[in-house]
Amino acid sequence: MNEKIIIIGGVAAGPKTACRLKRLRPDAEITIIDQDTLISYGGCGIPYYVSGDVSDEQELRSTSFHAVRNESFFTDAKGVAVLTKTRADAIDRQNKQVKVTNVETGEKNAIDYDKLVITTGSTPNLPPIPGADLPGVHRISDMHQAIAIKEKLAKGKVGRAVVIGGGAIGIEMAEAFADLWGVETTVIELMPQILPRAVDTVFASMLTSHLEENGVKVLLKESVLAIAEKDGAYTVKTDQRSIATDIIVMAVGVRPRSEIAKEAGLLVSPRGGIIVNNRLQTSDPEIYAAGDCIETTNLISGQKFHAPFGSLANREGRIVADNLAGIPSTFTGVIGSFIMKAFDISIGCTGLSFESAKMEGFDADRVITAQSDRAHFFPTQAIIPLQMVFDKTSRRVLGLQGFGPMGDAVLARLDAAAALIGKGAVVEDFINLEMAYAPPFATALDALNATANVADNAIAGRLRTVDLDEFLSWMNNMNANPDWIALDIRHPVEAEPFKKKFQEQWHTIPYMEIRKRHQEIPANKKPIIICDAGTRSYEIQCFLDSVDNRSSLVLGGGFNLVRRLSVDWWPA
Amino acid sequence: MNEKIIIIGGVAAGPKTACRLKRLRPDAEITIIDQDTLISYGGCGIPYYVSGDVSDEQELRSTSFHAVRNESFFTDAKGVAVLTKTRADAIDRQNKQVKVTNVETGEKNAIDYDKLVITTGSTPNLPPIPGADLPGVHRISDMHQAIAIKEKLAKGKVGRAVVIGGGAIGIEMAEAFADLWGVETTVIELMPQILPRAVDTVFASMLTSHLEENGVKVLLKESVLAIAEKDGAYTVKTDQRSIATDIIVMAVGVRPRSEIAKEAGLLVSPRGGIIVNNRLQTSDPEIYAAGDCIETTNLISGQKFHAPFGSLANREGRIVADNLAGIPSTFTGVIGSFIMKAFDISIGCTGLSFESAKMEGFDADRVITAQSDRAHFFPTQAIIPLQMVFDKTSRRVLGLQGFGPMGDAVLARLDAAAALIGKGAVVEDFINLEMAYAPPFATALDALNATANVADNAIAGRLRTVDLDEFLSWMNNMNANPDWIALDIRHPVEAEPFKKKFQEQWHTIPYMEIRKRHQEIPANKKPIIICDAGTRSYEIQCFLDSVDNRSSLVLGGGFNLVRRLSVDWWPA
Repeated sequence: MNEKIIIIGGVAAGPKTACRLKRLRPDAEITIIDQDTLISYGGCGIPYYVSGDVSDEQELRSTSFHAVRNESFFTDAKGVAVLTKTRADAIDRQNKQVKVTNVETGEKNAIDYDKLVITTGSTPNLPPIPGADLPGVHRISDMHQAIAIKEKLAKGKVGRAVVIGGGAIGIEMAEAFADLWGVETTVIELMPQILPRAVDTVFASMLTSHLEENGVKVLLKESVLAIAEKDGAYTVKTDQRSIATDIIVMAVGVRPRSEIAKEAGLLVSPRGGIIVNNRLQTSDPEIYAAGDCIETTNLISGQKFHAPFGSLANREGRIVADNLAGIPSTFTGVIGSFIMKAFDISIGCTGLSFESAKMEGFDADRVITAQSDRAHFFPTQAIIPLQMVFDKTSRRVLGLQGFGPMGDAVLARLDAAAALIGKGAVVEDFINLEMAYAPPFATALDALNATANVADNAIAGRLRTVDLDEFLSWMNNMNANPDWIALDIRHPVEAEPFKKKFQEQWHTIPYMEIRKRHQEIPANKKPIIICDAGTRSYEIQCFLDSVDNRSSLVLGGGFNLVRRLSVDWWPA
Repeated sequence: MNEKIIIIGGVAAGPKTACRLKRLRPDAEITIIDQDTLISYGGCGIPYYVSGDVSDEQELRSTSFHAVRNESFFTDAKGVAVLTKTRADAIDRQNKQVKVTNVETGEKNAIDYDKLVITTGSTPNLPPIPGADLPGVHRISDMHQAIAIKEKLAKGKVGRAVVIGGGAIGIEMAEAFADLWGVETTVIELMPQILPRAVDTVFASMLTSHLEENGVKVLLKESVLAIAEKDGAYTVKTDQRSIATDIIVMAVGVRPRSEIAKEAGLLVSPRGGIIVNNRLQTSDPEIYAAGDCIETTNLISGQKFHAPFGSLANREGRIVADNLAGIPSTFTGVIGSFIMKAFDISIGCTGLSFESAKMEGFDADRVITAQSDRAHFFPTQAIIPLQMVFDKTSRRVLGLQGFGPMGDAVLARLDAAAALIGKGAVVEDFINLEMAYAPPFATALDALNATANVADNAIAGRLRTVDLDEFLSWMNNMNANPDWIALDIRHPVEAEPFKKKFQEQWHTIPYMEIRKRHQEIPANKKPIIICDAGTRSYEIQCFLDSVDNRSSLVLGGGFNLVRRLSVDWWPA
């Protein structure tokens, strides 16, 4: 008799498991169960559907050859049965049955399985805020919510929007509202930065600055107390203010949807993720789990965590299928790669952020560069700030963050870094990494290699940088470090407005003249060397070290970096 | 006394060595010698200067902060002396002196060194063709040639151009002539494909097709016999025809410029590259060498070879500087990463091509995919054909080739692949590689991961593909394999014109209907399954294997790939 495989959950990991398994084992009888009618959709595309980049929701449920992935598609094309509108209520492990209810008719049933796969995904968090369940409050939980939001937009009913939560989905939704629809949009984030935990403050700050340039208001360190409705008009009350709005999107993270597994007695972590081995088997060897509902291992820190990424769901589905078919594939964990678009920029991270690396107990340090993505003489060149996080003792690279114009320049550096970090690479591996080069694509010494060189100089103690936060606060109150002096080595045209504003605390000597004029630098002061990218500053630091015994500091990334932050001391 | 370092050659590796060493050892007395007046330029930018993308030659010799890297720049900013117009005639290793001649005055001199660095670069090959030394024939050897070519273009003296050599420089020059200047341009290549040795025929063919779409004539397997001039008009005579032209660019490869090293008794390889150890020391431990003039090791094949890439020159210069400063850096070799722009496309390769891998004795195979670079529903998505070359026995990935629209999508996959290949990665590493994902940047299962999955299926024998060359020749003469039949599973609208043209040799059943209608496939024929990308075909192959015992074949990459090639059988 053919083996019966039941899969609970039909969005990402489930269909992937089903289709791969059917190719490997055409004789398997595979059934996907889902309580929804809309299945197998690209949930990550929801913001682009709401924005209008994607005109029809069916596109998110279609193949690249324009077939809609509905029940009959799975049956006819894939040979996989799909039961929609079918809620899985419980797993009877003893009798190897799934208890189900037809959500339309209420009819109850029990479905036998030989092997079971749980791919129930994640569910958006719903914080205990009064009014969070009002009809104007949406969570990006499924296609129906996306359709409802877009309908309101299309009917012209939305002039103002509030997004609660400054994570990736919140920001993508904010862009969707503000960009095409011209909605006055506010993002509220409880933490002191957007994209908390994903990137460090400097990169979050560049993104905040870009959002604000595009008309999105960003409120940080602000907590929502209540949502109220009156005659269809909404008010979001925070600990700081009241905001009138027409729609609210709640995007404050997701948690694994693992209740059915827990109730069946399968091991579930305290954070709610189903516990699996590296073949993605649960604590019951007849039951597998994959996608957003499982807990996985961070390959850098060794810690267990929840990684709800669509790309992982696909990889994991393949591995479940392999193991069900007798192919011994393993999934050992993730390093965590992430990228997003926001208006005209791209921002992303792979591996650990600096803050995470410190929390995990690494002897962590970081360097930031602000180099060109391609030859500086090539017309489309742009600056892409990169931050490398590394362990000073082992020289292992722990993470990379990037920010740049929209396009794939940041992606290329992140993907290359992810490949090396996943292999446990050290700084030297990044120095020697062979990035493909031609002037339209890169610099002869690629920005990623250059960043590794800077890390190498920092570890060796040749490069000493000023702490960026300390520098920024000094710029607002120079009395905080009275022994510091800015040494601006840029072109006089660039340096002059700063000299005018900061007077004797701002010393300017052009880069080309330092070797002759270094004695002019005021004595008893610690020079903070400033240029555009940090590169010349490092060179001057090496030189100054050889001629005097003051320990100067370099502004890493230079003003290419700082001008991307929101600072109020920039001369007009 | 301060150590005296003499560097012969001031283009790429030389200046890099000098500047890094001066930062590490500010007390070193460093002098760069070059016979030219123009130094430290981005030679790879020459085609963009000729095309007009870069307006002024000084931009190729400028820093990112717009300082021209001339003699005084090196003296004032870097503390490095430069002697231009100074030819190094010989190295007197006994007395540690370089014999030089001032090329303007003829004055001879001897310069003492403690350590010597040879960075003499490469010199373009000059094949023994009568007329190759005529004034209308240019080689892309230095900035003067570039300036001379652009002057001719700017004066409107060039209506027709012939480029001899279909390597990267030849093609970039062809684009420079044809794109902005509208010059009628012909590329002549001796081998049966352009970019010989760099990429395999399929990828070269896609590029040829794109060049021809943009008005560049490409002549393959054609050898130039002579170049003649009459009254300022030129004729290039090949073994096939005579071509009238106004200008000729000779771009038939480069060789290491190592004469001075050889004459000084240093070890030089039969291929002309200076032999160095992994600290880039020559056979005389007081003499280092870096850049285009050295021989290096291919890290995949273990073979010695010549890798004249600007990106390597920079890395090598850093390593020489480190070792001169007492930092034990090593350079172990290269895998060979390469990318280029041609009109609206990008094409590149990392690691070994399929042909090279076979020649090196690997149990080599390859798979080609033609997937989207980003979510198929995202507006800017495009197809990026990728080819993975691997060893069937060890599963080691040996190389990756990519072709796509202009932008960094191909770059991202090549750079990630280069990182893994450099680490000796196997197919599984590519399957598990964490490419950053969001719909504007990638597909949930990235094209690179997907290509690795296909390689895995091929190694396991689950996927059997038709040899592309055999398929293409069958399309021109179906009697060659009378037992083959095309099984076109695409949408009827796509399949119909082919059915009409090829009649009973072209069987069409839409993908969605195969499970019901597979018995209709004519018996005693071997189906060649055809779809857009190859993905659905593989699925159908798995299904057919389960229901009949005919061994079908898949057209890998599908018609997404084939339509990028120049084929004359495509229905109108």
